[in-house]
Amino acid sequence: MSVHDIVDNLQGGWIGGGGPESDVVVSSRVRVARNLAGMPFPHLLNKEGADQVVGLVRKASEDERFLARAGRIELVTMGELSAEERQVLVEKHLVSPDLLNQFEHKAVAIDGEEKISIMINEEDHLRIQVLLPGLQLNEAWQLVNGVDDALELNLDYCFSEQLGYLTACPTNVGTGLRASVMLHLPGLVMANQVRGLLATVTKLGLAVRGLYGEGTEAVGNLFQVSNQVTLGRTEEEVINNLLLITRQLLEHERGARAGIYRERRELVEDKVFRAYGLLKHARILSAGEAMRLFSDLRLGVEMNLLTGIPPELINELMIASRPAYLVKTGDGRKNNYEMDVHRAELIRSRI
Amino acid sequence: MSVHDIVDNLQGGWIGGGGPESDVVVSSRVRVARNLAGMPFPHLLNKEGADQVVGLVRKASEDERFLARAGRIELVTMGELSAEERQVLVEKHLVSPDLLNQFEHKAVAIDGEEKISIMINEEDHLRIQVLLPGLQLNEAWQLVNGVDDALELNLDYCFSEQLGYLTACPTNVGTGLRASVMLHLPGLVMANQVRGLLATVTKLGLAVRGLYGEGTEAVGNLFQVSNQVTLGRTEEEVINNLLLITRQLLEHERGARAGIYRERRELVEDKVFRAYGLLKHARILSAGEAMRLFSDLRLGVEMNLLTGIPPELINELMIASRPAYLVKTGDGRKNNYEMDVHRAELIRSRI
Repeated sequence: MSVHDIVDNLQGGWIGGGGPESDVVVSSRVRVARNLAGMPFPHLLNKEGADQVVGLVRKASEDERFLARAGRIELVTMGELSAEERQVLVEKHLVSPDLLNQFEHKAVAIDGEEKISIMINEEDHLRIQVLLPGLQLNEAWQLVNGVDDALELNLDYCFSEQLGYLTACPTNVGTGLRASVMLHLPGLVMANQVRGLLATVTKLGLAVRGLYGEGTEAVGNLFQVSNQVTLGRTEEEVINNLLLITRQLLEHERGARAGIYRERRELVEDKVFRAYGLLKHARILSAGEAMRLFSDLRLGVEMNLLTGIPPELINELMIASRPAYLVKTGDGRKNNYEMDVHRAELIRSRI
Repeated sequence: MSVHDIVDNLQGGWIGGGGPESDVVVSSRVRVARNLAGMPFPHLLNKEGADQVVGLVRKASEDERFLARAGRIELVTMGELSAEERQVLVEKHLVSPDLLNQFEHKAVAIDGEEKISIMINEEDHLRIQVLLPGLQLNEAWQLVNGVDDALELNLDYCFSEQLGYLTACPTNVGTGLRASVMLHLPGLVMANQVRGLLATVTKLGLAVRGLYGEGTEAVGNLFQVSNQVTLGRTEEEVINNLLLITRQLLEHERGARAGIYRERRELVEDKVFRAYGLLKHARILSAGEAMRLFSDLRLGVEMNLLTGIPPELINELMIASRPAYLVKTGDGRKNNYEMDVHRAELIRSRI
C-alpha cells in the first residue's frame, strides 16, 4: 500500500476503532525522538544534508534484517505528495503539523496497517511513532521499541552514556519518549469536573492538550494527556505512570456518565439523539458544530444508547469532515459555505 | 359528538388543515358579538341572570327551525368541563381565554365539525365564531351569518337603528364583527421584512397579534391579522378589506420564500431538516422550542421539501404540545422537566 493509498483510506490504524477501554480511550500513542550521529540537527541541515538523512533512513528500512524484524514500511518524501495529501496525513495524526513546514526537506514512512509512522527531519532526524486504538500504551511502546531496534541495526544514533538520546530540543533528551492517550470525557465535562481533574493531572507532571496537539483547544470533549518528563525515568516508568493516571481518569469518567444517567437519563439521551438527528438531517454543518455533535454521538455509542452506529464510523467521519479531506473530495467547492454543505452531505450519506 | 369528545379530538375543524392558500394561511376566523335585549351585559349579571341567558340560547339552539337552518350544535356549561378540558378548548382556539374567568357563568356551544362555536356570557351574551382552515373569510362569514339569522328566529338582539348591534365594549358596536387570519410568515421573518410589512398593515387599520390573541407574542412565525373597525362599514367591506391585504401579504411571503430558496437553497433546507431531525429524535422539548421547530417543519411541508408529513399533523402536534393537553395525557407528570420529556415522546411517536 503506497502512502497515496494510505491518504485515501479512512478505515486504517486508530481510526478503525476498538481496542481496550475504547468507551473512553480513543487512541494511545508512543513516539521516540532519535538523531543520527555525525549529522547536524534538522534545523541546521541544508537540502543536501536533509536528503542524505532521508537516504540513510530509506536504506535502513529496506534492509533485509529490518524487514524481517519490523516488516515493510513505505517511505515517501513530502514533496512527492500534494498539499492536500500532506494535510490529510496531519488530520489522520500520522504526521505532525511541523512536518508540513519546509516540507521539501522532509519525509515520512508508514506501514500498511497505519500503526507505525516514522517522520524524517521533523524537529529530530527521526520521530518513530506508533498509534493504536483504545488503551494500548504498552503495546505501542513494544512496537516502537522493535522498530527502533531494527533501524539501529543500520543507523548510528546520537547517544550520550550520561544523558541518553540527544535531541534537538532539550525537553526530549534522555529517553526521547513521549506517550499520550486521547480521551473522550463528555461525562466529566457535563458534571463540571473536567477542569479540576485535569489541573490535578498537570500537577502530576502530565500535559493536557486538545485533539491536534500543542496549543489546540479540546474540541468535541477530546483531551490528549501526555508525559512531560523524558529524563531520569525509564521508558517503562513513563508508560506505567501514564497508564495509572489514565485508568483513574477512566473510572472518574465512567462514574460521571453513570451518575448523570441515573439522575437524569433523558438529559443524556436528549444530547445523544439530538446529535444523531442533526447529523442525519442537517444540510449545513460547520467543522466546529460537527465535532461537538460527533462527541455527543460517540457518547451514545459508548453508553450503548445508540445501535447501528459502529464506533469506527465516528472516527472516520471526524477525519473526513476536516478541511483537507473535504477539499480533496469536494469537486472544487472551497469556500466556507460550500465546505459546510459538502460536510453535511458527506456525513448524511454515511449515518 | 359531545363537547368532551371534541376536547379529545385533535383532527377536527381548522386543525384538519387544507383550504385555499394553506401554504401561508393557516386559518380564517369570523365572529360577531350579540347581546339579548332587556338583559344586563354579562359583567353586570349575577349567576341567576347568567343562567337565564344560557337557558335562552340553549332553547334557541334546540328549536326545530334553528336545527333546519344551522344544524345540531352541542351546548355545555363551562362548569360541566374539567379545568383541563376548558384549557384545551382555549388551545384549540374554540373559546377565548376570557371564557375561563368566572367560568360558572359561562357556556359554549360547538358543532360536530368544530367549525362553529358560540361563547355565551363572555364579554357579550353571545359571540358566534366560525373558524375554517386556509383562506376562507367569505365562507366563514356566510356560516356566521347563517347561524346568527337562525338564532335570531328565537332571540331578541340588542340593536340600535343608528349604531347597529350594541355591545359591552364600544370597540365592537356596529357590526359586532371581528375577522382574522392566522398567517405563517417564516419567509418574511428570514428576509427581515416582517416588521416593516406588519407596521404598514397596522397603519391600514388592521391589528397584528400572536397565536393566542391579544397581548401574545408571535411564536413559531404565526401572526394573527384582524380588523379593528366595526362601525361605519358593512360586514362585506370589512371582510373584503382583510382579504385584499391578506392576499398581498401572501404574495410577499411567497416571494420571500422563493427568493431565499433561489439564492441559498441549502439555508432553507437546513432549517427544515434540522427541525425534522430534532422533532424526530429529541428527548426533551420545551414548548417554545417545539413551536419554533414546528414553524420550520411547516415551511418544509408548505414548500414541498418534505414528504410524508401531512400538514394537519403539524397543527395537531402544535395543539397536543400545549400544556393543558400534555397534562391531560401525561399520567400525572406535571413539572416542567416531565412535561418537556412527555412533549418530546408524544411528538416523536407521531413524526
